Amino acid sequence: MKPKLDDVAKLANVSKTTVSRVLNKRGYLSQETIDKVNDAMEKLNYQPNTVARQLFNKKTQLIGLIFPTVTNPFFGELVEELEKRLYSQGYKVIIGNSMNDPDKEKNYLDQLLSNQVDGLIVGTHNSDIHQYKNENLPIVAIDRIMNQDIPIIESDNYQGGQLATQRLIDKGAKNIIHTAGPKSLNTPAQRRRKAYEDTMVANNLQPICYTVDFNIPYKDKIEIFNRMFEEQPNMEGIFASNDLDAALIMQIAKKFNKRIPEDIQLIGYDGTQIMRNILPELTTVVQPIEEIAIKAIEVLNERLENNKTLDEYILPVYIWEGSTC
Amino acid sequence: MKPKLDDVAKLANVSKTTVSRVLNKRGYLSQETIDKVNDAMEKLNYQPNTVARQLFNKKTQLIGLIFPTVTNPFFGELVEELEKRLYSQGYKVIIGNSMNDPDKEKNYLDQLLSNQVDGLIVGTHNSDIHQYKNENLPIVAIDRIMNQDIPIIESDNYQGGQLATQRLIDKGAKNIIHTAGPKSLNTPAQRRRKAYEDTMVANNLQPICYTVDFNIPYKDKIEIFNRMFEEQPNMEGIFASNDLDAALIMQIAKKFNKRIPEDIQLIGYDGTQIMRNILPELTTVVQPIEEIAIKAIEVLNERLENNKTLDEYILPVYIWEGSTC
Repeated sequence: MKPKLDDVAKLANVSKTTVSRVLNKRGYLSQETIDKVNDAMEKLNYQPNTVARQLFNKKTQLIGLIFPTVTNPFFGELVEELEKRLYSQGYKVIIGNSMNDPDKEKNYLDQLLSNQVDGLIVGTHNSDIHQYKNENLPIVAIDRIMNQDIPIIESDNYQGGQLATQRLIDKGAKNIIHTAGPKSLNTPAQRRRKAYEDTMVANNLQPICYTVDFNIPYKDKIEIFNRMFEEQPNMEGIFASNDLDAALIMQIAKKFNKRIPEDIQLIGYDGTQIMRNILPELTTVVQPIEEIAIKAIEVLNERLENNKTLDEYILPVYIWEGSTC
Repeated sequence: MKPKLDDVAKLANVSKTTVSRVLNKRGYLSQETIDKVNDAMEKLNYQPNTVARQLFNKKTQLIGLIFPTVTNPFFGELVEELEKRLYSQGYKVIIGNSMNDPDKEKNYLDQLLSNQVDGLIVGTHNSDIHQYKNENLPIVAIDRIMNQDIPIIESDNYQGGQLATQRLIDKGAKNIIHTAGPKSLNTPAQRRRKAYEDTMVANNLQPICYTVDFNIPYKDKIEIFNRMFEEQPNMEGIFASNDLDAALIMQIAKKFNKRIPEDIQLIGYDGTQIMRNILPELTTVVQPIEEIAIKAIEVLNERLENNKTLDEYILPVYIWEGSTC
């Protein structure tokens, strides 16, 4: 008689659900449990059938999107693109704004692991979340390094940093400041800072970074930029880590009677549609939001079908030529 | 013997599911079916018990949010507030960006009616969707008139239009233009136009409106505003229907060598946090996004518990005093 799922469960001393999870690589499982189940299947020469495979693979047609906040135009436009495209493939999206809240992120991840959503696209991460380390989960990260098992979709941050810094130098600026996210955050965006530093050094210029955490309140950002203008009276160029910060720098420059671009050349980052509409004069590095969304969904689909994916997908950026640099 | 749900179903010649749906006022049902079931219950003197009531009232803990697009900062910030607050009540949100797509809106509504979400908060509408006319659905509308059965949460559009127009007049402007959404759209926002017209007439001034559909491509908006500047060389004030349009008008004014506020006083609408950060100089009418979100969730909770709600909840607005008016 052919061995059944039940027999595997009994021999491995686990529930049928657990066996099914091992078969389908779904849910959080310890390596010990996985090994036990695999051993039992081998001993019994168990051949999983499609029904068993699908037993707990019930599709919800829901994809979870976890991003810091849709009020940041980059994430807002990305979420919009993802939703539009996933919808046309028959999915609906659950959106979680996880800003400053690792518990919330964990909660959404639990939802994936308990099969309440089919997959996740994540633009935020808390490195303490151990479940991410499970293999082959249908998760895709955007611009965030999670671990070696989760593929990352990102725009070419090094190229962006290089393009921005070189443009400032080409326009004649020498004292160039970069306002960057905290170094402690392990994100591909750190490569912008690296590219800035490399390009400055290659041009015999001194790199100076001001750290501005994306998450801090607006008034704290104002304080940092005020201090920067006070401490750097001779600065001739600023490479801002995002367009919202660049817009704020434009406000503060007025207060300090610094003209842009005559006194200070300014270049931003992200280049969302809304910022290009509201502040078309801001020169900025444009991240290809549509292409990022397309690639993220493509890779997620591969993951959902248990196909192999690359570790990293890097998409090119370009410069929006405004009048601030 | 006490009559059972089964007896009602048999007498009405419908399924038990249908009886339960009638009891719980959930799902799409024809009036004929509702009448048949009610007649059968009356004949049998059937007393529904809580279990029967709850049988198909399985909670999903999902709330659907249908808005035109999260890339518009007003909707982006509103969705963020709603998500944050619903999350803290144990709900997750499904987000649908329905811009230009009545089919998509219908699809999300079907999802509600088939019990895949517990409730809907809707900031968009297509008047052809007949299901909205079903009574007592757990739906709340924001700034949209759906029908007499769906409560509306809105900011005080009449007050906003009045404040904006009166401020322009007080600043000395006489030739004042209002850029408004299409009259054909039946939204509370139409009251802004009415207030503008009333206030102009009360001051013996001639109201002139330019219609700018929220949904049209950016380049079409540029065309309309270019035409407005050509046709109205003597305009002294503009009341824009939203801040994005006001920002665009600021760009175009530069091209026409018109200074703001020296030549033209400008006032926007919405006053989102991000616009006040990027363009703090723009004077605008602030909609209380946080209060709108709080009230919408409060009213939805009443609906979910089958409690009576008002038809309309109107929240006060105020003016953000920038330097453009």
